[in-house]
Amino acid sequence: MNRKKIVSGIRPTGNLHIGNYYGGMKGLINLQEDYHAHFFIADLHSLTTHPNPENLKKNVLQIARHYLAAGLDPERSVFYAQSSIAPEISELHTYLSMVMPLGDLLRCPTFKEKAKKHPDNVNYGLVGYPVLMTADILIHNGDYVPVGDDQLVHLEIARTIVRKFNLLYGETFPLPQPIKENAVRIPSLSGQGKMSKSDSQDSFVSMDDSPTEINKKTKKAYSDPKRVYKNDPGNPTKNGCNVFHLHSYFTDGDRLNAIKKQCLQAEIGCVDCKASLTSSILSIIEPFQERLRGITDHDAEGILLDGKIKAKDSAQQLIANVRKKIGLQMV
Amino acid sequence: MNRKKIVSGIRPTGNLHIGNYYGGMKGLINLQEDYHAHFFIADLHSLTTHPNPENLKKNVLQIARHYLAAGLDPERSVFYAQSSIAPEISELHTYLSMVMPLGDLLRCPTFKEKAKKHPDNVNYGLVGYPVLMTADILIHNGDYVPVGDDQLVHLEIARTIVRKFNLLYGETFPLPQPIKENAVRIPSLSGQGKMSKSDSQDSFVSMDDSPTEINKKTKKAYSDPKRVYKNDPGNPTKNGCNVFHLHSYFTDGDRLNAIKKQCLQAEIGCVDCKASLTSSILSIIEPFQERLRGITDHDAEGILLDGKIKAKDSAQQLIANVRKKIGLQMV
Repeated sequence: MNRKKIVSGIRPTGNLHIGNYYGGMKGLINLQEDYHAHFFIADLHSLTTHPNPENLKKNVLQIARHYLAAGLDPERSVFYAQSSIAPEISELHTYLSMVMPLGDLLRCPTFKEKAKKHPDNVNYGLVGYPVLMTADILIHNGDYVPVGDDQLVHLEIARTIVRKFNLLYGETFPLPQPIKENAVRIPSLSGQGKMSKSDSQDSFVSMDDSPTEINKKTKKAYSDPKRVYKNDPGNPTKNGCNVFHLHSYFTDGDRLNAIKKQCLQAEIGCVDCKASLTSSILSIIEPFQERLRGITDHDAEGILLDGKIKAKDSAQQLIANVRKKIGLQMV
Repeated sequence: MNRKKIVSGIRPTGNLHIGNYYGGMKGLINLQEDYHAHFFIADLHSLTTHPNPENLKKNVLQIARHYLAAGLDPERSVFYAQSSIAPEISELHTYLSMVMPLGDLLRCPTFKEKAKKHPDNVNYGLVGYPVLMTADILIHNGDYVPVGDDQLVHLEIARTIVRKFNLLYGETFPLPQPIKENAVRIPSLSGQGKMSKSDSQDSFVSMDDSPTEINKKTKKAYSDPKRVYKNDPGNPTKNGCNVFHLHSYFTDGDRLNAIKKQCLQAEIGCVDCKASLTSSILSIIEPFQERLRGITDHDAEGILLDGKIKAKDSAQQLIANVRKKIGLQMV
């Protein structure tokens, strides 16, 4: 079986919430069924914001454990830390940087946005982020890249680089194609926008939360403001009630229909409905936490080191070919 | 003896003229006496202008043979092709790019000049040239860098990067110091500015020219336009006569004084004086050409491969230390 290759990076930011899990991770991990997936933890990219050296490795192992607990299969996919192939990615980045027009990078909306947000930290690496990302993809001759809408422009830069390089040095890389991420946006418990770690602690359910914490958070969740008394019938739709909206992601169809009916007929109040949401969330989080407890940092490190061997092998073959095309035959 | 380290790059552009040899190469090579020199042929930097892959290696070997013939001592110095340590330099470049402010690079006069000259080839690698140059220096913990006036701004960028990196991750790199190049500017045979390969063939003496070619070129050299007849006394000063100016570099003191006297007294004419210049030039070029004939491409390749081993060893030690400082402990 010759599965097409996908390459996808994962930011090493710890403390995932259920919105990340359900909204992004699961969708990403599911791609391993149909594609030969290369998943890497983007510890090099994270350097643009100068993470604390003490925490960097800890964060990488933590995020690795979370992805493994969520179902990433390291036998089926190549799973590694980006820094494991830092020499190869960086070398490819050097070659790609020689063909990439600077203007396109400076006009890139994500760069402009970051430069505006952190005007004191507009470093050279930041404008080159899409070039390093292109190296991440091309280092394995990636065919497909899962991208959200905001990343389409980066993929377009990757495609520009491939076209220019192939034109200059002969057919070398496949033109990477996007796989549109069908990212589900889980709403915040606060009812304000989607769940996000940058909002208050009570607005999201962390994948590490205990049942007590989860219960406490769902109790405070924003529900239908028009339903004042338990005897009032509710409004169990996505737009009518935030708690019902959350149920729609985490509660199975039969139970969801029952809740809807009971709410419409004022047979259950918001307190019951929220308790039911807690139990739905726990049915996802508890098995996850159990799997997570079964994976030590040491296990995760071993798995990433196995991944490193596979990633390095594929990267070195590619670099050898690129050097040949460019005419660097000394090394 | 603990010699301070210098690092210096050599552009792999073939066909040197005697102005390069006498004006730059010799001065650079002489540094090997007092410093632990690291000389590299900058084949990666040359990629910004997309050299023909067919010629790249040939050019590297040719320039290596020329430097060896000019006296570069590969026992005393580390002499290698930049691409031999492409993974290490590129990886270091990745880390440095995360601390280097983009604005300083965009304001760099050499970048602005090149961008103006080749508006159709302003690539990302071009703006990053000083960062890659910094990696060239820091990869060996270079203490000193020989620089011409036009390169001082690049060294300042290197120093900015060192300061920022050391501040962020703790004392890691020494602050590189400039060694001002006392580059002698050999005048063109045409009397117009300094000798340059971009001018007409007759305006410079190539280090590969035969005695016949050299004779032909010096015969046509621009001399004192005010001396019309052989019986007129000449004006043997640097400003008064271009041929005398050339003599002042290539002819030894006693003979130079004799020529001056004879010219002032109209005892010799310009034809004799030019024949004498030919012989001075041949006394430099002929021994050089003989040494050059004694060095094959194969010899040069062997020497560069020995240099690669030394350069790689020093580069890998440095990278290991940098990774540790940044907190990349996986690889």
